[in-house]
Amino acid sequence: MGSTYGENIRLTIFGQSHSPAIGMTLEGIPAGEKVDFEALEAFLKRRAPGQNAYSTARKEADKPEFLCGFTENVTCGTPITAIIRNTDTRSQDYENLKTVPRPGHADYTANVKYNGYQDAAGGGHFSGRLTAPLCIAGGICKQLLMKEGIRVIARIAAIGGVKDQGELTEAVTGKDFPVMDDIQGAKMQERIAEAKADGDSVGGIIDCAVLGLPAGIGDPMFSGMENRIAKIVFGIPAVKGLEFGEGFRAAEMLGSENNDRFTVADGAVKTETNHCGGILGGITNGMPVAFAVAIKPTPSIAKPQQSVDLSTMEVTELVIKGRHDPCIVPRAVPVVEAAAAIAVYDALLARRKETGR
Amino acid sequence: MGSTYGENIRLTIFGQSHSPAIGMTLEGIPAGEKVDFEALEAFLKRRAPGQNAYSTARKEADKPEFLCGFTENVTCGTPITAIIRNTDTRSQDYENLKTVPRPGHADYTANVKYNGYQDAAGGGHFSGRLTAPLCIAGGICKQLLMKEGIRVIARIAAIGGVKDQGELTEAVTGKDFPVMDDIQGAKMQERIAEAKADGDSVGGIIDCAVLGLPAGIGDPMFSGMENRIAKIVFGIPAVKGLEFGEGFRAAEMLGSENNDRFTVADGAVKTETNHCGGILGGITNGMPVAFAVAIKPTPSIAKPQQSVDLSTMEVTELVIKGRHDPCIVPRAVPVVEAAAAIAVYDALLARRKETGR
Amino acid sequence: MGSTYGENIRLTIFGQSHSPAIGMTLEGIPAGEKVDFEALEAFLKRRAPGQNAYSTARKEADKPEFLCGFTENVTCGTPITAIIRNTDTRSQDYENLKTVPRPGHADYTANVKYNGYQDAAGGGHFSGRLTAPLCIAGGICKQLLMKEGIRVIARIAAIGGVKDQGELTEAVTGKDFPVMDDIQGAKMQERIAEAKADGDSVGGIIDCAVLGLPAGIGDPMFSGMENRIAKIVFGIPAVKGLEFGEGFRAAEMLGSENNDRFTVADGAVKTETNHCGGILGGITNGMPVAFAVAIKPTPSIAKPQQSVDLSTMEVTELVIKGRHDPCIVPRAVPVVEAAAAIAVYDALLARRKETGR
Amino acid sequence: MGSTYGENIRLTIFGQSHSPAIGMTLEGIPAGEKVDFEALEAFLKRRAPGQNAYSTARKEADKPEFLCGFTENVTCGTPITAIIRNTDTRSQDYENLKTVPRPGHADYTANVKYNGYQDAAGGGHFSGRLTAPLCIAGGICKQLLMKEGIRVIARIAAIGGVKDQGELTEAVTGKDFPVMDDIQGAKMQERIAEAKADGDSVGGIIDCAVLGLPAGIGDPMFSGMENRIAKIVFGIPAVKGLEFGEGFRAAEMLGSENNDRFTVADGAVKTETNHCGGILGGITNGMPVAFAVAIKPTPSIAKPQQSVDLSTMEVTELVIKGRHDPCIVPRAVPVVEAAAAIAVYDALLARRKETGR
Repeated sequence: MGSTYGENIRLTIFGQSHSPAIGMTLEGIPAGEKVDFEALEAFLKRRAPGQNAYSTARKEADKPEFLCGFTENVTCGTPITAIIRNTDTRSQDYENLKTVPRPGHADYTANVKYNGYQDAAGGGHFSGRLTAPLCIAGGICKQLLMKEGIRVIARIAAIGGVKDQGELTEAVTGKDFPVMDDIQGAKMQERIAEAKADGDSVGGIIDCAVLGLPAGIGDPMFSGMENRIAKIVFGIPAVKGLEFGEGFRAAEMLGSENNDRFTVADGAVKTETNHCGGILGGITNGMPVAFAVAIKPTPSIAKPQQSVDLSTMEVTELVIKGRHDPCIVPRAVPVVEAAAAIAVYDALLARRKETGR
Repeated sequence: MGSTYGENIRLTIFGQSHSPAIGMTLEGIPAGEKVDFEALEAFLKRRAPGQNAYSTARKEADKPEFLCGFTENVTCGTPITAIIRNTDTRSQDYENLKTVPRPGHADYTANVKYNGYQDAAGGGHFSGRLTAPLCIAGGICKQLLMKEGIRVIARIAAIGGVKDQGELTEAVTGKDFPVMDDIQGAKMQERIAEAKADGDSVGGIIDCAVLGLPAGIGDPMFSGMENRIAKIVFGIPAVKGLEFGEGFRAAEMLGSENNDRFTVADGAVKTETNHCGGILGGITNGMPVAFAVAIKPTPSIAKPQQSVDLSTMEVTELVIKGRHDPCIVPRAVPVVEAAAAIAVYDALLARRKETGR
Repeated sequence: MGSTYGENIRLTIFGQSHSPAIGMTLEGIPAGEKVDFEALEAFLKRRAPGQNAYSTARKEADKPEFLCGFTENVTCGTPITAIIRNTDTRSQDYENLKTVPRPGHADYTANVKYNGYQDAAGGGHFSGRLTAPLCIAGGICKQLLMKEGIRVIARIAAIGGVKDQGELTEAVTGKDFPVMDDIQGAKMQERIAEAKADGDSVGGIIDCAVLGLPAGIGDPMFSGMENRIAKIVFGIPAVKGLEFGEGFRAAEMLGSENNDRFTVADGAVKTETNHCGGILGGITNGMPVAFAVAIKPTPSIAKPQQSVDLSTMEVTELVIKGRHDPCIVPRAVPVVEAAAAIAVYDALLARRKETGR
Repeated sequence: MGSTYGENIRLTIFGQSHSPAIGMTLEGIPAGEKVDFEALEAFLKRRAPGQNAYSTARKEADKPEFLCGFTENVTCGTPITAIIRNTDTRSQDYENLKTVPRPGHADYTANVKYNGYQDAAGGGHFSGRLTAPLCIAGGICKQLLMKEGIRVIARIAAIGGVKDQGELTEAVTGKDFPVMDDIQGAKMQERIAEAKADGDSVGGIIDCAVLGLPAGIGDPMFSGMENRIAKIVFGIPAVKGLEFGEGFRAAEMLGSENNDRFTVADGAVKTETNHCGGILGGITNGMPVAFAVAIKPTPSIAKPQQSVDLSTMEVTELVIKGRHDPCIVPRAVPVVEAAAAIAVYDALLARRKETGR
């Protein structure tokens, strides 16, 4: 039962890559919130496939149909459900996967877990396609956060070892290839093109920041902002690492270097640096919440790979058909933003219980 | 409400550093499980302070009193509660913290969140001392896992930039300073001694592995093994990063390098490498579950630090009194093991719903 | 966030009476379970409107479309979502309800809760129509229970003061008007006809029994079988009372009368009577789980009623248009069965964590 | 895992009748709330045994020790834990219960559920003694509600068929034997004395009302006020029935009788009657929330009873030793108040997420 997230809102994601539809239900959004559906579709388009050289050729509009939760475009307080029909499916591409699992994918582990009854076509419920409903929920949460002056931004920090330069700022917003330094961005795209030409794939790192979040958001121990973000971010396929602020670099620093000095600016408590990524004791300190996510290279590659035929228990060579991204990092950027927005909005509602009367 | 963890067991941790007691309640452990209390105390001792040069001089037996949940030393199926009395407290050491927050600690964020009503003494509920009840729960879960042939091991992978050498194996078990290469361990201890002499502190990295876990454990999306481990591990104070298998290194690899080839060994499906850290699609694949945790340097240091007096909103210099670890990494090793054991045992119970009849 | 139920399965119900669709998502059903969709539709038909004199004339096929969760008709382990399109809606019938709430309905309370943003048409999310998705989930659970020899049956115990005679047995199954004594059933139908002719409505009582449930199901305190059944049954609109076994009659009995004597039959522990309704300490004792539910008379009646115009805060007379059941008790019988099946199946999965290995 | 309650606060109850201690943890109470511990102890005393002719002679102070969650007597925002030591235990009274279950108790069902490993002494976790920690949590919530003008009151509505007269009002507060009509109260006490003299026991009904609760509290479907109250109230041992407003009487009424007419009083929407018990669609309408609870006669009676020896599977006669209440209804009155206060306070916090900013 892993397809549900949230303590104060509750998001449920359903669907398989090749089932009639995929979708999401989002409970707990207060009544009376206007949603800009055009802006939402523009956000979803950032994740949609088929738009450029480095994403899969599978073409689907990813246009959500909202089944309930609104009167016109205003929330009515009850669960919001939206679905996306699966149309451009080619299940025949996946016929061999039921018995020969793809390395790096969930085919084998799903086979064990579901005792052979898994829906293997296109990765089933484990497909990256299921990040589309995550983006519906996240897109709504982003809009609600924006009304309170909270912005979620993200960029490609690295692809295949090529690193972006400079700090993440809102200047990245609206870019097709979201990096701060476009020259580095061009190199990253070359890196992807090389891997594609080679029948291979590359991974990368995404930086995300939440700006404008007040201090005091998050709970101690297992519902700190780190825990909340981690629980949703590791739900994005291919994420294998997560760090806040200096993260793994902090392990090499002295306390005197890593501690952020408190100061006063504009009458408010601030820190001079932000090594802690805006979170102390699981609770926001008013500085930007900053984290980085490691994305592994797309496991689906054109090169033949060694696998095992589960029906015969013999080692075999697998050639993966179907259409795949040589690098999913660019399309994962809005997904990371969506995940962050959901986690932050949920924590904000938790905070209202303490402050609202 | 962050002090509770678990979907199939439910762990609640309570207490403040200087309240009469701290403790934990653990629900959902099946009846009829014998617990070896001596072994449990030996496990707790690995975390206890006051044992060597690199830990705080605060001396407390950390001996748990079990209030319920057992008949003799066998679980009776209902909630298990254990408490540890706080005895060696010196609240006067913390008198200045209510208005002058320590950099790197939760003092300021707790002040905002709790509107000035936080228990500031010793860090309150945010104190590292609260990892003692986590270890009670984790020590019990470790014993239960052991009965099913599942072992949780961990080592110090790095301190202040000094790295351990070699792969993590069970040979590390029982070592006072748990590293594979004792020469590197000696260097790490020097590094700690230097920092201490300098009134400073250092951080580090802990590697953890879960051995003997069958394939098929974990749920898709937000309750995958990564999400489960992340939700509890980020509840350990000072953890700022987490990666599974190759983690951030995977971001620089090609798909053909990072994918683990399936093979057959002893009649079972295995992978030739374990870049994925034993988890695909959130579900175990039968290889060791392997992850690394970044621990920031202890924020409490002897050096004077810049902070803000919240009562006057003026920048001030803070000198932290009290007794503190120049490096908490060694004491955090059993805590990481405890966290992993709890997460894994919870996921194992989830699995029983699918397979048991 | 009340539209979700379950600890070991998770049911989410979404939709409004006049939104594009209503539906449900059911998580946690193990993979490999075959569902008989024809039998499921036959079950749903028992609840569907427009079939006889005592139900609303609103005609809708209530045919669910399954969007995911299956490969063919076998569960694949991931969330099951089904929707029902709303087709025969007449929102114009409800135009006056946004400002003049219907007595006995949720119109006024929803208006307060959602600050005027509620979907008032047809009762929105509070409509009895939302019991259709409950029956989809319940119908699936009934089939899964049946495979383990567990049957859920229910009957009309009383309508408008006319009582059924005799004990509830499986002989009631398949009856159009589910009573044990058809003569009493005919009187009940007369009672409904009278109320209808009078522009009024009547309530009643439904008896439900779960047969074949082994001893040992349920948890102490707040997750006992009574609590579990209560939490879902009070989610059925119009339910205002619930009792187990003798229920309110036990309040007038002596301990020596009410206690069920233990005995041995067929080598198993049984009780000679079943005053406790098959539950002791929240846990099943192997006798039938038996409970009764009080259903209030349909609040929508043809007679003019006194209400308040919320836009002017003046008392006014309300005439309810639309099509309504003079008695919802007959259609509520399968809904109560569905609710019981969901609660019992959820508790059964909880039990597996204790017994399965 | 049934010993936890709450969505926005989280109450966990732990302990067995004869374990070293029993207690509770309450999470989610906002920081800065002053608790009057003397008033709390006075409230607990209403439930405590050994005070009069109709309660058990077991004498325990039931004085809670607070382990954490406060600085002085003000909440600090983190979990509150209180324990009560078990002192006056006589386990030898219960030696025969492990193999010969008491009729009407959880002995047999606990034996099955926990596979023989249950703590049988004094009923273990199923003992009525565990309502003491429920009253600690409920007493705190009552105080917090009182600050917002919300009062929870309850009375004995009937014992052994003898009924109280008149409507429940706050005049009942402070009475030793809480009935509106003391003459009826005297008859009830006679009824209890008769049963006691006869080695028997009697049950009864408790009425509870929550006054001053604003409209708009509660959520649709499974988290309506009825569901929330039901989930906790059925956690009180011996409760077998629950009804709201007219409850089972509504099943015999016409819609035109049962519907409460809306009117305007003091500029606010009110209803002329309160047949619905203050709840429509699961949400409060601003009238008193009113419910009644059926309590079965104490199952422990002095008369010999038929049971089964589980070690031999032979029918046997059981004589229950130990000290027991001939009627638990009087002591259950504050327990029902506590349960209602917890459920209402939890729902109030949920409401803050919608209204607070």
